[in-house]
Amino acid sequence: MSKGLPKRSEDYSAWYNELVKRADLAENSAVRGCMVIKPYGFSIWEKMQQTLDKMFKDTGHTNAYFPLFIPKSYLSREADHVEGFAKECAVVTHYRLKNADDGSGVVVDPEAKLEEELIVRPTSETVIWNTYKNWVESYRDLPILVNQWANVVRWEMRTRLFLRTAEFLWQEGHTAHATKDEAIKETEQMINVYADFVENFMGVPVIKGLKSENERFAGALETYCIEALMQDGKALQAGTSHFLGQNFAKAFDVKFTGKDGKLEHVWGTSWGVSTRLMGALIMAHSDDAGLVLPPNLAPIHVVIVPIYKKDEQLQAISEKANQIKKALQDKGYSVKFDDRDTHKPGWKFAEYELKGVPLRIAIGPRDLENGTVELARRDTKEKNTVEIEGIENRIPDLLDEIQNSIFERARSFRDENIRKADTYEEFKKILDENGGFIKAHWDGTSETEEKIKNETKATIRCIPLDNEMEEGKCIYTGNPSKQRVIFARAY
Amino acid sequence: MSKGLPKRSEDYSAWYNELVKRADLAENSAVRGCMVIKPYGFSIWEKMQQTLDKMFKDTGHTNAYFPLFIPKSYLSREADHVEGFAKECAVVTHYRLKNADDGSGVVVDPEAKLEEELIVRPTSETVIWNTYKNWVESYRDLPILVNQWANVVRWEMRTRLFLRTAEFLWQEGHTAHATKDEAIKETEQMINVYADFVENFMGVPVIKGLKSENERFAGALETYCIEALMQDGKALQAGTSHFLGQNFAKAFDVKFTGKDGKLEHVWGTSWGVSTRLMGALIMAHSDDAGLVLPPNLAPIHVVIVPIYKKDEQLQAISEKANQIKKALQDKGYSVKFDDRDTHKPGWKFAEYELKGVPLRIAIGPRDLENGTVELARRDTKEKNTVEIEGIENRIPDLLDEIQNSIFERARSFRDENIRKADTYEEFKKILDENGGFIKAHWDGTSETEEKIKNETKATIRCIPLDNEMEEGKCIYTGNPSKQRVIFARAY
Repeated sequence: MSKGLPKRSEDYSAWYNELVKRADLAENSAVRGCMVIKPYGFSIWEKMQQTLDKMFKDTGHTNAYFPLFIPKSYLSREADHVEGFAKECAVVTHYRLKNADDGSGVVVDPEAKLEEELIVRPTSETVIWNTYKNWVESYRDLPILVNQWANVVRWEMRTRLFLRTAEFLWQEGHTAHATKDEAIKETEQMINVYADFVENFMGVPVIKGLKSENERFAGALETYCIEALMQDGKALQAGTSHFLGQNFAKAFDVKFTGKDGKLEHVWGTSWGVSTRLMGALIMAHSDDAGLVLPPNLAPIHVVIVPIYKKDEQLQAISEKANQIKKALQDKGYSVKFDDRDTHKPGWKFAEYELKGVPLRIAIGPRDLENGTVELARRDTKEKNTVEIEGIENRIPDLLDEIQNSIFERARSFRDENIRKADTYEEFKKILDENGGFIKAHWDGTSETEEKIKNETKATIRCIPLDNEMEEGKCIYTGNPSKQRVIFARAY
Repeated sequence: MSKGLPKRSEDYSAWYNELVKRADLAENSAVRGCMVIKPYGFSIWEKMQQTLDKMFKDTGHTNAYFPLFIPKSYLSREADHVEGFAKECAVVTHYRLKNADDGSGVVVDPEAKLEEELIVRPTSETVIWNTYKNWVESYRDLPILVNQWANVVRWEMRTRLFLRTAEFLWQEGHTAHATKDEAIKETEQMINVYADFVENFMGVPVIKGLKSENERFAGALETYCIEALMQDGKALQAGTSHFLGQNFAKAFDVKFTGKDGKLEHVWGTSWGVSTRLMGALIMAHSDDAGLVLPPNLAPIHVVIVPIYKKDEQLQAISEKANQIKKALQDKGYSVKFDDRDTHKPGWKFAEYELKGVPLRIAIGPRDLENGTVELARRDTKEKNTVEIEGIENRIPDLLDEIQNSIFERARSFRDENIRKADTYEEFKKILDENGGFIKAHWDGTSETEEKIKNETKATIRCIPLDNEMEEGKCIYTGNPSKQRVIFARAY
C-alpha cells in the first residue's frame, strides 16, 4: 500500500475520490462520465440490490424489463418531462459503421441513418406507459406493480464517481392504479421502504419529505424524497418516489373501465434509487483510514489475519482460524482467512481497514496458548483480547451492535447539524460556517427559492412529512410562511 | 382466454410467437427490434440468472460493471472484432435535444455533437481490456475472473422475441490469465458450466463442440459452444466460450511481469449466454397447450385450484389448500393457491397449462371427504387421484421425476434426430425431410462451408469435443476429411 488517504478535514473531495479508487469500489472509464464499478464495489451494490429486491417483492412488486431506447417523439408527449430530460440525453442517430473510404478506420455510415432518432433512456416513464396502454383494459388489470433494474444515461457535464455519472445503475418502479388514493398510498409506501433500507441497512438516518415544485420530478404532481447528511455537511438525496397523477396516462392514453362501467385514466407512480447510494454509504461513515461498512451490507463481515514468525506456526493458527471461519459461515456470515505469505500482517490490517471490513481477528502463537484472539472493530478501532471459546456466538451480537452504533453515530451527527435560521444573514452564516440542514421559513414561491439558490447554492431539500406548523416570515422576502422547510447545499 | 394456440405441426413459427405473448413472457415494443420482457417471463429469467450467478461464483468469479458506451476507435483496435460488429451497431452521435425553431417538437441539437461517436456495446471486450490494462502489472494481479450482467445491442434486421432482438440481456465473463494453458482451461470450464446449466436446469441436452473458423467469435482463436435441438428440427446455439489468445491483450497493450521478470502479454477468454436461452427453453419442451417448464426453473411449482359449486364449500377447501401450500413452501417450493372467484376452474386449468406450471392440484368437496386431491402433471398431462396425507413428501420426488423426464424426452428426440449423411444428395434430403443434426464429412475449408450454407441454409454447428476420428470424403468437394462435423439449419 502506498501512502495514506488525503484527510477529510483537509480535502474532503480528494479524500472521497481517492477512497473510491483505492478501496476498489469504482474508477473512471475512458468514456467521459461513465464509470467502471470494480468487483469489490459491485459486491456491495449487489447486497443493496438483493436487499431492496426482496423488499419490493415483499410489497407485491415483480420485475420486468423495458427497452433501453426511447423514440425521440415519446419524450415530447409529457411537456414537463421533455423539458426535464431533453437537455442531457444520449442520442442514437445511426445503426451502422463502415470502413472509411480513405482507409482511416471506421466511420458512421450515412446511409444507415435512423428515421427517428432514439434516446438512451434517462428514465423509463414514457416507454413503460406506452406499454401499459396495451396491458390495461378494465379495473381487473390493475394495479400493475412492476420494477426494473436497469442502466440509464443522463449526459451530466460535471461527473463524480457514484454521485453523478453519465451512466448509472438503478431500479425504477412504475405502478398503475385505479384510484388516486391507491396511487398516493403506493408512493408513500415506497418512500417508507427506501427510508427503512437506508436507515436499517446502510445505517444512514434520513428525513422524509416532499420536494418543492422546483425540485420535483419532471412530470410528477408530487415528489417524496429521503434526504441524508454527509460528513462534510452537504445533503444527499438518497431516493425519490413520485406521484404522477394521471399525467403519463393522459400522455399515452392509458384508460380503464371501472366497476361502474366508466372509462377513466389510470393513476401512476414511479420511484427509484441508484448507484448514488454507494456514494452516500461511503461518505456517511468512512474515515481517514478508509471505508467503514455497516455489517448489513458488508461483503466480508470478518477477516482473520494470522500473525507468525516461523512457517511451522502457521499450521496450528490455520486450524483454529478455519474452525472459527466455519462456525461463523454456518451462521450465515462471510469470513475471509487471509493467509497469503506475500504480505505482512501490518499491510493486511491497513488493507482491510481501507476496505471497511467490520471485524478483524488476529491470531498469533501466544493467542493459541491462551485460547484467545485479538478482535478489532473497524468502526471504533477498539481492540480487545477475547476468548476463542464461543466466539461464534458473540460475534453476531457484536455485528448487530456495530450496525446499531454506526447508525447512532450518523444520527447524532445529523441531529447536531440541523439548525434553525430566522434571518437571511443567519442562514448564510450557518451555511458557510457549519453547513448541515437549516430549517427556515420560506414564502412558498419558486422565485424566492431560485434566488436563494443562486446566491448561496443552497436548495430546499424537502418539506418534512412530519413538519410542525409554525407561523413565521420568509427569510428572504419577509412574506408570511406557515412552516419551516429544510435547506442545504447538496450533492 | 381466447381460442387456443396455433398448432406446432401446422405453423411452428406462429405457435412460438403466440405462445411467447400469451404466456406473458415477452412482447415487441414500439422500438424496432427491442422487446419488453413481461413479469412472468422475467421471473423465469431471474431464476436462470440466480442459478448461473451462483455457478460463476462457485468457480471463483466476481461481478463488476463496465460502461454501456464504447468509443468508436476502440472497436477498430482488433481487426476481426470491428469487422464482426461494426455493421450492426447503434451509434450515439449527439448528447442533447433542443426545441425545434418551428415549434414542431424536439430535434437533435447540432451544437451537441460528440467529438468521437460512441457505440452502444454489442459486447464488451474492447472497453474491458482497455480497463484491464490498468489492473495488471505483475503475475500477482492475475488471473482476473470477472463477469458482468448487462444489456447489449446488435442492430439485427430480422428480429424474433428472445431469439434475435436488437437489445438483449446477457452475462459476459471476461478473464485474464498468465498462461495460455490456464486460459484454455478457463474457456473449457465455462463451456462445461453452461452445459451443466442447460442440461440440468433447463432440461435441454446439448452437444459441446468447437466452432469452425467461419462461425467463430470475431476476435477469438477458438470458440467453444453448446448446441441444442428444437422441436422443429432446427438447432440453437445456447452458449459460447471464447479463447481469445493474446488478441485483445495486444490490441490494448495489456502486459504483465512474470515470475521470471519477463514482460508478456496476458491471455484472455470471454463467455456468454443471453435471453436467447429463454427461446431455447420455450421451444425445447412446450406443446400445443402452452409452456412446459422444468421444475428447476419454474417460478411456480404447484398451483392449487379449488372446485366448488357453493360458496360455503370454499372455506373447507381453502383450509386444506393452505395447509398443503404451507407444507410445500416450508420445503422451499413455490405454490400458488388460485381462489379467485372471477374465473372458472376450466379457465384456470387452461391458464396454468399455458404458463407451464409443472403440477396442478384440484380440490373439490368430494376430495375432502375422501382425503384426496386430483394431481395433474403438466409435462405428460397424467392425472391421478392421490392421498393428501404426506403429499408434501411425495411432491418433491415427483418434481424431480418431472425434471428428469423432461430432459429424457428432449434427449430421446435429439438422439433420434442425429443422422449421418454420406453424400450431398442425402444431406439435402435429410435437411428437407427431417431437419435435425446431420453428421457429415467436410473438407475443412471456409469456402466449402460457405457454399453449403448458401445452397442449403445449413451451417456447421460444431465439431464435437468428443468426436471420433473417421476417414472420409467431404460431401461437397469429395476432398479427404478426418472427422464428421455437425451441420444443421439453425436459429
